[in-house]
Amino acid sequence: MFFASDNGAPVHPAVFAAMERANSGYALSYGNDPATEALRDRIRTVFEAPEAEVLLLTTGTAANALALSVLTPPWATTFCHRHAHIAEDECGAPEFFSGGAKLTLIDGPHGKIAPDALEQTIAQTGGSVHVAQRGALSLTNVTEAGTVYTTAELSALTAIAKAHGLPVHLDGARFANALAATGATPAEMSWRAGVDVLTLGGTKNGLLAAEAVVLFNPAQAWEAALRRKRAGHLNSKLRFVAAQFDAWFEADRWLDMARHANSMAARLARGLSALPGAEVVHPSHANIIFAQLPATAHTRAKASGAVYYQSDETLCRLVASWSTTGAEVDALLAAFAA
Amino acid sequence: MFFASDNGAPVHPAVFAAMERANSGYALSYGNDPATEALRDRIRTVFEAPEAEVLLLTTGTAANALALSVLTPPWATTFCHRHAHIAEDECGAPEFFSGGAKLTLIDGPHGKIAPDALEQTIAQTGGSVHVAQRGALSLTNVTEAGTVYTTAELSALTAIAKAHGLPVHLDGARFANALAATGATPAEMSWRAGVDVLTLGGTKNGLLAAEAVVLFNPAQAWEAALRRKRAGHLNSKLRFVAAQFDAWFEADRWLDMARHANSMAARLARGLSALPGAEVVHPSHANIIFAQLPATAHTRAKASGAVYYQSDETLCRLVASWSTTGAEVDALLAAFAA
Amino acid sequence: MFFASDNGAPVHPAVFAAMERANSGYALSYGNDPATEALRDRIRTVFEAPEAEVLLLTTGTAANALALSVLTPPWATTFCHRHAHIAEDECGAPEFFSGGAKLTLIDGPHGKIAPDALEQTIAQTGGSVHVAQRGALSLTNVTEAGTVYTTAELSALTAIAKAHGLPVHLDGARFANALAATGATPAEMSWRAGVDVLTLGGTKNGLLAAEAVVLFNPAQAWEAALRRKRAGHLNSKLRFVAAQFDAWFEADRWLDMARHANSMAARLARGLSALPGAEVVHPSHANIIFAQLPATAHTRAKASGAVYYQSDETLCRLVASWSTTGAEVDALLAAFAA
Amino acid sequence: MFFASDNGAPVHPAVFAAMERANSGYALSYGNDPATEALRDRIRTVFEAPEAEVLLLTTGTAANALALSVLTPPWATTFCHRHAHIAEDECGAPEFFSGGAKLTLIDGPHGKIAPDALEQTIAQTGGSVHVAQRGALSLTNVTEAGTVYTTAELSALTAIAKAHGLPVHLDGARFANALAATGATPAEMSWRAGVDVLTLGGTKNGLLAAEAVVLFNPAQAWEAALRRKRAGHLNSKLRFVAAQFDAWFEADRWLDMARHANSMAARLARGLSALPGAEVVHPSHANIIFAQLPATAHTRAKASGAVYYQSDETLCRLVASWSTTGAEVDALLAAFAA
Repeated sequence: MFFASDNGAPVHPAVFAAMERANSGYALSYGNDPATEALRDRIRTVFEAPEAEVLLLTTGTAANALALSVLTPPWATTFCHRHAHIAEDECGAPEFFSGGAKLTLIDGPHGKIAPDALEQTIAQTGGSVHVAQRGALSLTNVTEAGTVYTTAELSALTAIAKAHGLPVHLDGARFANALAATGATPAEMSWRAGVDVLTLGGTKNGLLAAEAVVLFNPAQAWEAALRRKRAGHLNSKLRFVAAQFDAWFEADRWLDMARHANSMAARLARGLSALPGAEVVHPSHANIIFAQLPATAHTRAKASGAVYYQSDETLCRLVASWSTTGAEVDALLAAFAA
Repeated sequence: MFFASDNGAPVHPAVFAAMERANSGYALSYGNDPATEALRDRIRTVFEAPEAEVLLLTTGTAANALALSVLTPPWATTFCHRHAHIAEDECGAPEFFSGGAKLTLIDGPHGKIAPDALEQTIAQTGGSVHVAQRGALSLTNVTEAGTVYTTAELSALTAIAKAHGLPVHLDGARFANALAATGATPAEMSWRAGVDVLTLGGTKNGLLAAEAVVLFNPAQAWEAALRRKRAGHLNSKLRFVAAQFDAWFEADRWLDMARHANSMAARLARGLSALPGAEVVHPSHANIIFAQLPATAHTRAKASGAVYYQSDETLCRLVASWSTTGAEVDALLAAFAA
Repeated sequence: MFFASDNGAPVHPAVFAAMERANSGYALSYGNDPATEALRDRIRTVFEAPEAEVLLLTTGTAANALALSVLTPPWATTFCHRHAHIAEDECGAPEFFSGGAKLTLIDGPHGKIAPDALEQTIAQTGGSVHVAQRGALSLTNVTEAGTVYTTAELSALTAIAKAHGLPVHLDGARFANALAATGATPAEMSWRAGVDVLTLGGTKNGLLAAEAVVLFNPAQAWEAALRRKRAGHLNSKLRFVAAQFDAWFEADRWLDMARHANSMAARLARGLSALPGAEVVHPSHANIIFAQLPATAHTRAKASGAVYYQSDETLCRLVASWSTTGAEVDALLAAFAA
Repeated sequence: MFFASDNGAPVHPAVFAAMERANSGYALSYGNDPATEALRDRIRTVFEAPEAEVLLLTTGTAANALALSVLTPPWATTFCHRHAHIAEDECGAPEFFSGGAKLTLIDGPHGKIAPDALEQTIAQTGGSVHVAQRGALSLTNVTEAGTVYTTAELSALTAIAKAHGLPVHLDGARFANALAATGATPAEMSWRAGVDVLTLGGTKNGLLAAEAVVLFNPAQAWEAALRRKRAGHLNSKLRFVAAQFDAWFEADRWLDMARHANSMAARLARGLSALPGAEVVHPSHANIIFAQLPATAHTRAKASGAVYYQSDETLCRLVASWSTTGAEVDALLAAFAA
């Protein structure tokens, strides 16, 4: 009964198989191998973006911070939700990579930025040499609250940024879960919705350590490549990161895993709704549930061996992954209920 | 016939086996799992350093830059060899991680810093608010020239640093090869020789992507942990990095692989010495050979499918790895000779 | 009728006289002259702090950012009011000097941080490697809203910081005005109230370009000196900055000028209170007034040649200086009223 | 007998007079005043560069580091002489302002970069993602050795940089002395010789604290303005910096002062050449002399009250300024000789 995070799940066996296939003989390092090049082409195809450039990394924090550093100079501020991962969970990585750029935190219900708040905040920013200048807009889908922006919602926000001439980053640590929740295509959820740079996260969805920064504007690729090297994120044996993504995209495994995780979270949400005293806090269509439960229910669940994070006596976060089983969900619900 | 770099070699099969064993069920992420903790204890034992702290990362550049950033403030300069990896091959990662600290480049034959040059350079550094202050000494073993410092040579250099109150970093991207070449123990080649922070490199010696920063002074561990996170180098599924090292240390596999690589390089050096017109440039006891060969020899070797780096028409670098075979060495020599 | 800012006022004539007296013959540069040393001793005496170290600079932004950089590592966050100068008016200087440390913005009425809000915010900060760590508390007196913390109010806030082990910075760009408003001594308004590092501002109170960073903890002086040089803020002819402060302290001129500015603002506030449709927004005991006035009143005042900043159609900021005259105040009031 | 540095000289009285004239009434701060604008126009005229942008600062270190930061990204290296001020005397300010860019140090006799060495060094730099990229060329005139580049020599070096697409910075801390030494016009010594950004130094030539960054490519002006503010170098009462330069340019006072300083140094050099055992080390046409003298000569001079820097027992640097008198020079020579 492990619901602490999707990055605590095991790696999908097909991923190891793909890496072992990649382990035959020698290959030039640092991405100068055919597998890394082939993966770039595959991602271009998946995203219907023949010009896109792709940089492979191994952590989402690095991918986000790298993406923002090519979009914002040190004297600008990135607009993001108050509870964005870049604001709350990366120990200042965006500030470090950008050379001290700021984050402007915008409130909004259920982890989403409200268009009015975005417009108003941008309008109040910049205008003189004394203040931080307008930088990028950074959105997250699936959000940290477990909610999902529709492509229409994304487009409404990116249109505001574009009207002010600002570039847009999408933190897609759970991009596959957002696709699975909405039925949108990768292109629809990214560049067609106004996204300039995407963090495409694999590690939370069955891979070992594989993230990609997808630059829909290839003009920034060389700068991004230098920044990646300089940050120590150019892994030498890159063919093994490429291999992970190969297994991911193979026969839409990435979407199958995400759909499964989402469905396990839905099963959990349905069960919680039926529990007296339990309340699901945010509307959720993906794989993260925030729920209020009586303290006694938590005590019972923990005693039964359930692993998950509590913010306080009653509020908790429950995350399903590609490997969560219906039996685990039911056992957790039973422990809460008993 | 791949002699371009030891990081172009495949991963040892035992490493995949260990990672797959680690892939059973769930584990807390970010190093809060028993495997990561057990590895730390194993490294403490291997190095006879019960207080040491260990941070796992996936690239050597990150490990070096992180190590230096805890040893030098932004206004200091790190003393290193002119051809050190941190100076020539990391695109300014040390400057980035440290917030702009300098490197002071010291010449010396065969990739080694001469004690006199070190003493003189340190003596000329610092002393007023207008200049860069004295920072750390950074040594590399195996050096970039493929030579190996003995523990006595290391101690002579670190003693000079210590006499000036300076901390010492050792870039051990090929630490195992240095141990194999000298017969020294891990402790003798590190803290007993005056090293404060070690980059322990696994990726160039059979692992997939595994490096460790070993802090013999544990007081700096929390700062290092924050810097690692902030740089995006706290991988979430850290149990798989730990598993790689487990396979490495198992039955001294790390030393066996290093000894094998060194012996293949020795076979190559012997063969080159017997070739008319060929010359081995640096004394080498490890797995890297720099050699001068007639341009025609290079043409033949490349035509035969040999892969390695040439600096100019005649000078080349040849690197052996754990997976290099005697047949490959002999085929290369034959191609050079024919 | 110039009420745009106290830094638009002329320099007090005595300041030029002092600088010209200092202009006799040669002097060692970079502060190695007797005048700079004598000023340091004078500031120690004025603040009853015989151990304090003093660094002279020429801008308040530099003084603030330098002060914070010695108090917070790059991975920490400084707690400050949402409208603090360091947050809103320095184009990210604190982030630049600190290497990317964050600011955590705390709300509070009338430009002041409420103790409860401070306690709660600190309590919610830090605790894991994923988040920004607790850094310094930065207070401002006179606040950006023109209000003044009493020494008791300051002490209540610094006590909270100290209870969490955090150092305290005071932005005293208008420190003299705060002293004049409260009657506190320099020591009472600084180290006795828990302040570790003070930005002592002279430029807004009659000097040409003179600020001092006063470090009550001298252990940080050398680091601060290196950071000052590295930021290009070690002026060579420092005797002329020292001379400005000499004229300032002479016969309590600094307090006289501040008292005068405060009294002119009080006269303005009294006049505004008597005007129909006018409202003074914040309680003010210093030299800054925020006021709501009918748009027509602003039109009339501007037409009469008044210079000041408007935030919107009705809200304005009016700043008095050492050189503001009663006649100017009355003329402005008349223009508003007419 | 003060020959320690030209920045230890007094301020020219006309400079104070100009500042006091500027001290009438109120003025908008931060350069939004007519005097600052008028000075910009004057510098455009002086340099025959109607598009140039001008940023005023108060230290040469800040001006140099700011200039370089707009010319080089963090992953590039600036090419400069091994003994350049930016390399040896600024405590890493260029690294700080640029976010960690490197300096590549080039040797060359008498403080000058040899064209061949520049070409060769640039050619060896860059080319892969692993290394620092080619950044700016930074030259210094008058050099740190007291020698002067002719405009032809400057052009030869900048042509090499331009051929590689690199921008050029000129550290003109003693720009007026270089003009006086060569008879070149300001335009000939800057943009016509291929300089993109000039540090125009006033402080070493009679001003109190006044430097200008002159951007001949105005496209970079806004970035430079933001960087200046962010570094705390946007002084509020900028009219007084402008006033200093007004006094400087008035009736070519800057050139008169520089010519005088140069002529005093020439008198000193002539005298030294006639002294038994004395040797002038570098050819000098400006205001700095490096000389070898017997240790006993130094002992006598110091005993006579002479102030200057010695590098070792015999080598010294002697700097003349606008206020050096012939009597002082002769007294120093007499002390050396006696």
